[in-house]
Amino acid sequence: MAPPAHVSAARRGTGARHKEQGGNWLDAYQRVRARSQVLAEPLTAEDQCIQSMPQVSPTKWHLAHTSWFFETFLLRPFLDNYREFNPRYGYLFNSYYYGVGRMHPRAQRGLLSRPTVDEVMAYRGHVDKHMTELLGQRHHPGRVHIRMRCELGLHHEQQHQELLLMDIKHVFAINPLRPVYRDLPKETGLAPEMDWLDFAGGITAIGADGTGFAYDNEMPRHDVLLQPYQLASRPVTNGEYLAFVEDGGYRQTEHWLADGWTCVQDRQWCAPLYWQLHEGTWHEMTLGGLRSLNRAAPVAHISYYEADAFARWFGCRLPTEAEWEHAAQDQPVDGNLAHSGYLQPMPADGPGLQQLFGDVWEWTQSPYSAYPGFKPLAGELGEYNGKFMSGQFVLRGGACVTPNEHLRASYRNFFYPHDRWQFSGVRLARDVLK
Amino acid sequence: MAPPAHVSAARRGTGARHKEQGGNWLDAYQRVRARSQVLAEPLTAEDQCIQSMPQVSPTKWHLAHTSWFFETFLLRPFLDNYREFNPRYGYLFNSYYYGVGRMHPRAQRGLLSRPTVDEVMAYRGHVDKHMTELLGQRHHPGRVHIRMRCELGLHHEQQHQELLLMDIKHVFAINPLRPVYRDLPKETGLAPEMDWLDFAGGITAIGADGTGFAYDNEMPRHDVLLQPYQLASRPVTNGEYLAFVEDGGYRQTEHWLADGWTCVQDRQWCAPLYWQLHEGTWHEMTLGGLRSLNRAAPVAHISYYEADAFARWFGCRLPTEAEWEHAAQDQPVDGNLAHSGYLQPMPADGPGLQQLFGDVWEWTQSPYSAYPGFKPLAGELGEYNGKFMSGQFVLRGGACVTPNEHLRASYRNFFYPHDRWQFSGVRLARDVLK
Amino acid sequence: MAPPAHVSAARRGTGARHKEQGGNWLDAYQRVRARSQVLAEPLTAEDQCIQSMPQVSPTKWHLAHTSWFFETFLLRPFLDNYREFNPRYGYLFNSYYYGVGRMHPRAQRGLLSRPTVDEVMAYRGHVDKHMTELLGQRHHPGRVHIRMRCELGLHHEQQHQELLLMDIKHVFAINPLRPVYRDLPKETGLAPEMDWLDFAGGITAIGADGTGFAYDNEMPRHDVLLQPYQLASRPVTNGEYLAFVEDGGYRQTEHWLADGWTCVQDRQWCAPLYWQLHEGTWHEMTLGGLRSLNRAAPVAHISYYEADAFARWFGCRLPTEAEWEHAAQDQPVDGNLAHSGYLQPMPADGPGLQQLFGDVWEWTQSPYSAYPGFKPLAGELGEYNGKFMSGQFVLRGGACVTPNEHLRASYRNFFYPHDRWQFSGVRLARDVLK
Amino acid sequence: MAPPAHVSAARRGTGARHKEQGGNWLDAYQRVRARSQVLAEPLTAEDQCIQSMPQVSPTKWHLAHTSWFFETFLLRPFLDNYREFNPRYGYLFNSYYYGVGRMHPRAQRGLLSRPTVDEVMAYRGHVDKHMTELLGQRHHPGRVHIRMRCELGLHHEQQHQELLLMDIKHVFAINPLRPVYRDLPKETGLAPEMDWLDFAGGITAIGADGTGFAYDNEMPRHDVLLQPYQLASRPVTNGEYLAFVEDGGYRQTEHWLADGWTCVQDRQWCAPLYWQLHEGTWHEMTLGGLRSLNRAAPVAHISYYEADAFARWFGCRLPTEAEWEHAAQDQPVDGNLAHSGYLQPMPADGPGLQQLFGDVWEWTQSPYSAYPGFKPLAGELGEYNGKFMSGQFVLRGGACVTPNEHLRASYRNFFYPHDRWQFSGVRLARDVLK
Repeated sequence: MAPPAHVSAARRGTGARHKEQGGNWLDAYQRVRARSQVLAEPLTAEDQCIQSMPQVSPTKWHLAHTSWFFETFLLRPFLDNYREFNPRYGYLFNSYYYGVGRMHPRAQRGLLSRPTVDEVMAYRGHVDKHMTELLGQRHHPGRVHIRMRCELGLHHEQQHQELLLMDIKHVFAINPLRPVYRDLPKETGLAPEMDWLDFAGGITAIGADGTGFAYDNEMPRHDVLLQPYQLASRPVTNGEYLAFVEDGGYRQTEHWLADGWTCVQDRQWCAPLYWQLHEGTWHEMTLGGLRSLNRAAPVAHISYYEADAFARWFGCRLPTEAEWEHAAQDQPVDGNLAHSGYLQPMPADGPGLQQLFGDVWEWTQSPYSAYPGFKPLAGELGEYNGKFMSGQFVLRGGACVTPNEHLRASYRNFFYPHDRWQFSGVRLARDVLK
Repeated sequence: MAPPAHVSAARRGTGARHKEQGGNWLDAYQRVRARSQVLAEPLTAEDQCIQSMPQVSPTKWHLAHTSWFFETFLLRPFLDNYREFNPRYGYLFNSYYYGVGRMHPRAQRGLLSRPTVDEVMAYRGHVDKHMTELLGQRHHPGRVHIRMRCELGLHHEQQHQELLLMDIKHVFAINPLRPVYRDLPKETGLAPEMDWLDFAGGITAIGADGTGFAYDNEMPRHDVLLQPYQLASRPVTNGEYLAFVEDGGYRQTEHWLADGWTCVQDRQWCAPLYWQLHEGTWHEMTLGGLRSLNRAAPVAHISYYEADAFARWFGCRLPTEAEWEHAAQDQPVDGNLAHSGYLQPMPADGPGLQQLFGDVWEWTQSPYSAYPGFKPLAGELGEYNGKFMSGQFVLRGGACVTPNEHLRASYRNFFYPHDRWQFSGVRLARDVLK
Repeated sequence: MAPPAHVSAARRGTGARHKEQGGNWLDAYQRVRARSQVLAEPLTAEDQCIQSMPQVSPTKWHLAHTSWFFETFLLRPFLDNYREFNPRYGYLFNSYYYGVGRMHPRAQRGLLSRPTVDEVMAYRGHVDKHMTELLGQRHHPGRVHIRMRCELGLHHEQQHQELLLMDIKHVFAINPLRPVYRDLPKETGLAPEMDWLDFAGGITAIGADGTGFAYDNEMPRHDVLLQPYQLASRPVTNGEYLAFVEDGGYRQTEHWLADGWTCVQDRQWCAPLYWQLHEGTWHEMTLGGLRSLNRAAPVAHISYYEADAFARWFGCRLPTEAEWEHAAQDQPVDGNLAHSGYLQPMPADGPGLQQLFGDVWEWTQSPYSAYPGFKPLAGELGEYNGKFMSGQFVLRGGACVTPNEHLRASYRNFFYPHDRWQFSGVRLARDVLK
Repeated sequence: MAPPAHVSAARRGTGARHKEQGGNWLDAYQRVRARSQVLAEPLTAEDQCIQSMPQVSPTKWHLAHTSWFFETFLLRPFLDNYREFNPRYGYLFNSYYYGVGRMHPRAQRGLLSRPTVDEVMAYRGHVDKHMTELLGQRHHPGRVHIRMRCELGLHHEQQHQELLLMDIKHVFAINPLRPVYRDLPKETGLAPEMDWLDFAGGITAIGADGTGFAYDNEMPRHDVLLQPYQLASRPVTNGEYLAFVEDGGYRQTEHWLADGWTCVQDRQWCAPLYWQLHEGTWHEMTLGGLRSLNRAAPVAHISYYEADAFARWFGCRLPTEAEWEHAAQDQPVDGNLAHSGYLQPMPADGPGLQQLFGDVWEWTQSPYSAYPGFKPLAGELGEYNGKFMSGQFVLRGGACVTPNEHLRASYRNFFYPHDRWQFSGVRLARDVLK
């Protein structure tokens, strides 16, 4: 399977990061901000209002909240005479920054018809206009902070671009009318066999190396001690996962963590989130609508519990995040990411270590914790990452809906073990017998 | 206070009932159907999507469900070669008719972005076109049933017109931006003193008398035996209710039913649903936005528990529905109803028995039960009323959002004792000491 | 089937009411109080601690609360120098009298290991000793109130005697070891055919006639107007109810009230509370342990929803409480009540109006409401009955666990429509076609 | 403060482990089993029935479940002709071993009055008699497995001895009568200053070294790489924690993990679990009853969230489990453990590294995960530990209610971050600036 032209282009262009813009933050700002709006274009005003479960946010909320981020952390502190677009928006579009002030309850984001989509777009225009002004003040005494926060704001917006796609997929999937976000190419094929690649272990450094942007939770770079291990050459496919389903995996307690088994019982899980059995044939809901299950593509939308149970059933285990990062450090940050336009995991297409970046986020067995010596960002932005360090697990590598510029080998994504509306899959690991 | 011109016009026109259309059901059909769309006009697409609590339905759901009613009970059984607009709508827009088939869960009506408002309007157009065709078939062998069901469908649509306004008020009231449905006239004044009117009791007949349309639950007309009683000349005002609030009524258990007290504690009620205290001044949320509390107008949006507690605090009681109907039987069915355009309860303006119809629904102490000899409609339409005869209480008289043509003295509305998003108030009654 | 000797004795002795004791309240007090302790005798200390669901109270709680009633409403106000047994008991054993003070949360009665059963018995002894002293003060200036309250306290204790048996049945029924409260006689037989008895209707008086003790909710006696009606000669039997079950009654929505259907779905009801299917044979849990279902005996432990659905399936309806009382007013207050010792409903044994009193409480279609002119008792005792007048339905006639002296034709029992741990059954009624 | 004689004795006797019994398992068996019964002696039958929250089990359940463990894993597979005491007990007293069969729902353990305490004691006698027989069969072909499982069963029983004390403390603490488990010595004093002890880090081995009993989750022993760090010389005291409380720590979001803050809000936490403010003075509920807060003793009954928030407020962090174990490996396994009889944390009494073992379990920042190469026990016993490896955190060191023989430096306890009914405290750690 040859990737379409725009995929190749994206792969060629992987070096394009914010940090390499030669300081031209305005270009980066405009490009990233425009991208959010492009993502919302296929959606009606009604689509942009829905919160299909508490974790999902309405599209228009994402569009407003990312603007609030720039308004709150850049315009208000740094732009003279800035006037807020609407003083109530500080309450409505604060996500979880207690240091900034009170906020609308998360689970009630879908109960707000106002501001309308048009009003949110006007808010974006207001913020963009003033950000353009601020970024043009090249001699601003706060310019160092402005650039740092602008870079953070753009990465923040990219995270919400991925969330927007995850969330609208959920919104559409629960609708009996099965809406389509965009017509997507249908491709099939065969996945290559799963190979095992050897890693010798030993002392290795992980974490952000300081050469580009990174979140605080990727720091400090530090040494870890690894045992020898093997990683699978590619993620587990839908076909492989189907064998687990058909073997009765969801009805056999012995594969499951105790909390996972409770979850399976309570929520009556019997397959990945978006799989559906219609007249004896498995289908999956995609951003291109309901389709027959592509067995060659990586399985997606599974929880940590499912990934872990599958691995145990298969006789393997999940990798640690250090094992994953060690393997990924000298790989190009490229693959089936958002710019490829597939918006679906695609089959692997060759030998060797495949699909580390893109297609699906890969669950690791590592709980999301502080690195030794971790220091959150100072002030209110310290709430960005650090306060979530309990109860969640790390995922690595990015997915088909992750903006290309947003990733790096040290990137740590994290979700609760029961979450599965993200594009999450599983790559197996195993110990090397000594 | 003089009513505005359109109110007087409405009052003059009170005789206009469906039944008096000389059989011209098409006119009635078009008038009622158009009215629903007029009510939705001030609303954005976003406004029409929101379900602010499980009891509330989105505006577009009301617009679609009322069309489904005609499609299901008229077009499908009676119009040759009728094709449904969309076969999934039968599932999406069935409210609670198990006899017709399965239905989308009520609490999830607000999770559906599709069909969009435009698609719902197209659905209405499709149904209207075919209903026009059906109603034009003057020699249809099922014409008797068609007319009966058409009349029922129009009353059904009128109920949903009231629900639409109740629901959008709730949608707006929970929004911190306090949207306005329509600019409404602001009027104040003084309410006349509360007088007591005597009724001698004895054997009297209540229930629908067969001279016009009535729901099955109003039948059969039957005799009841009443003790002598008194009714207050007008509903309790905001000012009178405020005295109860300020006397600590919500903190004194002795006024409350046991279930009511639990409700007050659990939901932390301290005033009617839409009252808010801002800087020491009481305001109320209205369809015209947030306003200072109009003390002369009838109190609205109170639960049965609050109506009952107020009455006990005041040293009175609620009337029974038979007492209410006995008093109302020879009164004109007129007042501050939806056509007046106030969309808010207004102060009473004279002596004698005032505001029996319109302004606010009046809680009675009568649980919603079957009349002796009650028979529900045959078939699936039997689910319309009868199956709700447990746990609810009867309200009488209609409110400022009730379509004028929809009411009559025998009309029985019903809600759970904890419900208060309807325009519900209280008229006091008391025993006559023998 | 001939009743055992002690049943006949009980039937002969039906006239024995508190009011006929010639003012010897001490005898009545001692007899009723001793009876509570006899009921607890078959129970271990562990049995007396359990609250198997929020509505159930532990046996020792009943034993303590009934003592608290005398302590609170008699000893503290009327006995000079009375000292409470333990000042914390006022909090622990107040059931729902807010006027008296705060109380331990109802749902947490089963979380208290202390006071132990022995301590509760010591508390009873303390109260009994001082009540004996108080009742001996024949010239006490408050003697009128003392006697009234003592009578109320004894009826209160009798209510808790019935609750104790209902509750321990539930405690045992949820225990996989199926404990037995007491060996009970096993009797079978055939129930007589269900006949229909005619009542002409008209104006009739219901409510307490003032000739003996009655609760405030039975007053005032007042006229009601009845249509002609028929009552079934006996309650519905297990066999008749089984036909409903086997006909799929629990899976057919058309028989059910909307709230009832929700209840059936949510709680997955498929038979009366204590029925169990073991290897194809229906059994029922009784106070004598698990037994094969006695098809001739009246069905018990059904909710209002089930009684109502059964009646609709059968083509009949439930009686109103006025219809029931009208029929019962000239019947002897006798039957299979607690003193008979069966502690299970027994088959009817003859023609004519059977089993109005005893065997099972009979659901009426009447919501529990105030009679016209109802006045609750003054003061804190006004909380006894009146505050429960919403959401519940009236049952009439008493059951096999109701103390004989506790009943009368005007007695109004009440439960929520979903409750079914009481011994509740159904007697059918129907309209007379005019 | 000098420890009482029996404390010193316990300290001298630390070497007494099961493994050193020279294979005389019967002695060990009898000693451990008798200890459970001694712990239950101060309790009434009623005390032994209560489940005060879902995590708590009734005392009699602990006594029965530990017997079920021997019956299930030893008597049934290894003793010829063994007959179960009661075949239903397999269902009632299985805790969470799905491989063994179905089980009574955990949250309903407190709803069972039967078996009574006496019946449970008879069950223990039955199991003990047959275990004595089995352990006497010195040439049993399964003797290797029997000894391994017996050792596991005794450690299992010791865990439940600690749970029994934790649980009964909770049962008593929620009772307004404040029962006392046992009179406990009251001691006060001053805690020594908190010192900081340096550890150089580097590669060090952690995990069970194979010289004695250990659970599967402590294996395999493996190397870890530590940064230089400091540990506090002793746990945080009540006095130090009180400063956090009085500084408003529970009202300041900035100290808290996001999930912790949600917990604080939802459960309205404002102090450790058993602290109470009476008339301006802080008290704590102990197994010896309610007492004024001992400021010199280690704070106990705090959740992970509270430990973590305190550490952040104090400017430090929690240790990792590897840091803790590294420091503990050459310390004697001794301290204020269950045999000391205090059943309360006591103040530290000297310089240097104090109280690593005993007094309070110390929260680490390490999520409970598998060690590299972890293999659970084969078969059903593999459910003992491994399936809980998500969502929980590791605690180290044992508490004042932990049996002395039960501990070792590699011992890993684990609880959810919101749990706090265990005797959990906090020892601070900090990084060494390089």
